[in-house]
Amino acid sequence: MAERIVSVIYDKIAFIGLGLIAGSMAWATQRAGAATMISGYARSEATRDTTRRLGFCDVVADSAVEAVADADLVVLAVPIGAMGGVMADIAGALKPGATVIDVGSVKQAVFDAVLPHMPDGVHFVGTHPMAGTEHSGPEAGFAELYDNRWTLIVTPDGADADAVDRVERYWAALGAMTDRMEVAHHDRVCAVVSHIPHLIAYTMVGVADDLRRVTDSEVIKFSAAGFRDFTRIAASDPTMWRDVFLTNKSATLEILGRFTEELFALQRAIRTGDGDHLFDYFTRTRAIRRGIIEAGQDTDAPDFGRGATR
Amino acid sequence: MAERIVSVIYDKIAFIGLGLIAGSMAWATQRAGAATMISGYARSEATRDTTRRLGFCDVVADSAVEAVADADLVVLAVPIGAMGGVMADIAGALKPGATVIDVGSVKQAVFDAVLPHMPDGVHFVGTHPMAGTEHSGPEAGFAELYDNRWTLIVTPDGADADAVDRVERYWAALGAMTDRMEVAHHDRVCAVVSHIPHLIAYTMVGVADDLRRVTDSEVIKFSAAGFRDFTRIAASDPTMWRDVFLTNKSATLEILGRFTEELFALQRAIRTGDGDHLFDYFTRTRAIRRGIIEAGQDTDAPDFGRGATR
Ligand SMILES: NC(=O)c1ccc[n+]([C@@H]2O[C@H](COP(=O)([O-])OP(=O)(O)OC[C@H]3O[C@@H](n4cnc5c(N)ncnc54)[C@H](OP(=O)(O)O)[C@@H]3O)[C@@H](O)[C@H]2O)c1
Ligand SMILES: NC(=O)c1ccc[n+]([C@@H]2O[C@H](COP(=O)([O-])OP(=O)(O)OC[C@H]3O[C@@H](n4cnc5c(N)ncnc54)[C@H](OP(=O)(O)O)[C@@H]3O)[C@@H](O)[C@H]2O)c1
Repeated sequence: MAERIVSVIYDKIAFIGLGLIAGSMAWATQRAGAATMISGYARSEATRDTTRRLGFCDVVADSAVEAVADADLVVLAVPIGAMGGVMADIAGALKPGATVIDVGSVKQAVFDAVLPHMPDGVHFVGTHPMAGTEHSGPEAGFAELYDNRWTLIVTPDGADADAVDRVERYWAALGAMTDRMEVAHHDRVCAVVSHIPHLIAYTMVGVADDLRRVTDSEVIKFSAAGFRDFTRIAASDPTMWRDVFLTNKSATLEILGRFTEELFALQRAIRTGDGDHLFDYFTRTRAIRRGIIEAGQDTDAPDFGRGATR
Repeated sequence: MAERIVSVIYDKIAFIGLGLIAGSMAWATQRAGAATMISGYARSEATRDTTRRLGFCDVVADSAVEAVADADLVVLAVPIGAMGGVMADIAGALKPGATVIDVGSVKQAVFDAVLPHMPDGVHFVGTHPMAGTEHSGPEAGFAELYDNRWTLIVTPDGADADAVDRVERYWAALGAMTDRMEVAHHDRVCAVVSHIPHLIAYTMVGVADDLRRVTDSEVIKFSAAGFRDFTRIAASDPTMWRDVFLTNKSATLEILGRFTEELFALQRAIRTGDGDHLFDYFTRTRAIRRGIIEAGQDTDAPDFGRGATR
């Protein structure tokens, strides 16, 4: 993002959870000058100490309640399964008029978990930054993570329009492009572009790992032939992804059903030697890659422009 | 590869097929000074003209027979399904003592197609460079493609040891690391590290392409959330991949069976809410990514170090 908003959007921002997502948000908040004060809290002392050393929070509190005191914006940046518990803890300590956002990768389940705890006069807005890396923890964060990436804004019924606008301005200040989406649609789109690709990558790597016991280290040695592209996303945080599949069950099962249907059709074409079916299928999929490159969502450099291993 | 062998390994080298693989080999041959003369032939006049303009061959012939005349090494760099036909065409024109190699991604099927045509006194060695990009055609080639990448050497029974050694030295001169492998083992390893990952990527992209009709361009817009990693390998050449699956049928069907078995177990875990199964599975797969990075087979930079879209 070329222009940076240098005016304060929230006086005090509190992050609950201090991993990749929160750390990157805090760095980007500092870069934009979007807050006067940043506080934070994470479950383990180790993470809190690391955060103190790294310096992306002004104050690291020893409880969530302490961290959110007097905050204008509270960011829930914990695994999806932990959102409800955190919300129950902090509900009584929230400042009237404050806004709470979450950054979870699934939205209906987060709404179900947090909305019942939301006090009157506190606003809630769901947000989902479509950016991340395969690394996690406080040291994985960096200010540029959201630059030119989408953040989806998903609002519960009856959300306060001004509060939503302000959240959207905040994400823009962090470098993100924003888009609003209805909650069920969000969960379905994410099943396609993110959740099922991750599940399939995990599966492929699991299969190869089994076979590795037979073929020694060959799977690793020759991984550049296609396999290694899967291993990156299959190295993502297990807790986060467990929670995604447990909480976005119906959309992921639906897309998975479509996937296995198509895979069986290709399997049958291989078995029966139906070269035309294979050729047509493999031709159709090229257009979507072109679309992604034209939309500026990926690089056209061969092999993603990987340099380090050349 | 830091040191380059500057002595001639084959006086005249002829490439049949002038795409990504042959073009890169020819550029690397020039870089290494590994041949005195390079000739080439491809099916279409357009490709032959492009090759003349690019200059990676000294002579582009108008027939395969012409191209291989007097060649010490003939490289079959056409799709797997075309290998047998090309071999039948050129068999009578090969110089006694010459060596023929192929570069196909499947080996048993190529052996079956070319060995019956091999004249006495001509040597045949199977080779498979485990390098490639999602681009194809003569303009896609570059001298560095094989640098520090594996090329597998797969020899038929009774192959001439000196001819095999020379082929191996030639690939080393192109920058590659080499390894020898038995033919059936080759086809199985490649099914795991390359063929099934490509099939699965094609399937995932196909599913998303179907849904795109429902969800407009959202699949493209939000592809950075995981999906786009699949689209790169699913943009590979359809002819090449059709031939791979038609000719490596039993190994690909076997690995595909393993894949669907594991996928169904994960699907069941999602349906029944078995978080432990999911967590354990997602944890196990991280080790293999570490192995790949430690083996220098991929970069540890987040997102493969993609820069262009940031
Ligand atoms: N990573 C991505 O690619 C990505 C992308 C978009 C959205 N998201 C969403 O962002 C959220 C956070 O992900 P992340 O990648 O930042 O994960 P992360 O790097 O693993 O960080 C998670 C943080 O949450 C803390 N935490 C866990 N349980 C907690 C609890 N009960 N109370 C307080 N703190 C707790 C952890 O503390 P400890 O370190 O002390 O355990 C850690 O600081 C998840 O909901 C995920 O769905 C992730
Ligand atoms: N791409 C990879 O990632 C990769 C990696 C390892 C091995 N391989 C193997 O390398 C071989 C070539 O692949 P590539 O990527 O170089 O493909 P490519 O870029 O599409 O080039 C194929 C070449 O073969 C020519 N050709 C096709 N049929 C022919 C015929 N009947 N007679 C003469 N020439 C013919 C084509 O000519 P026109 O242009 O005139 O059609 C073109 O020059 C394949 O066997 C593949 O399995 C590929």
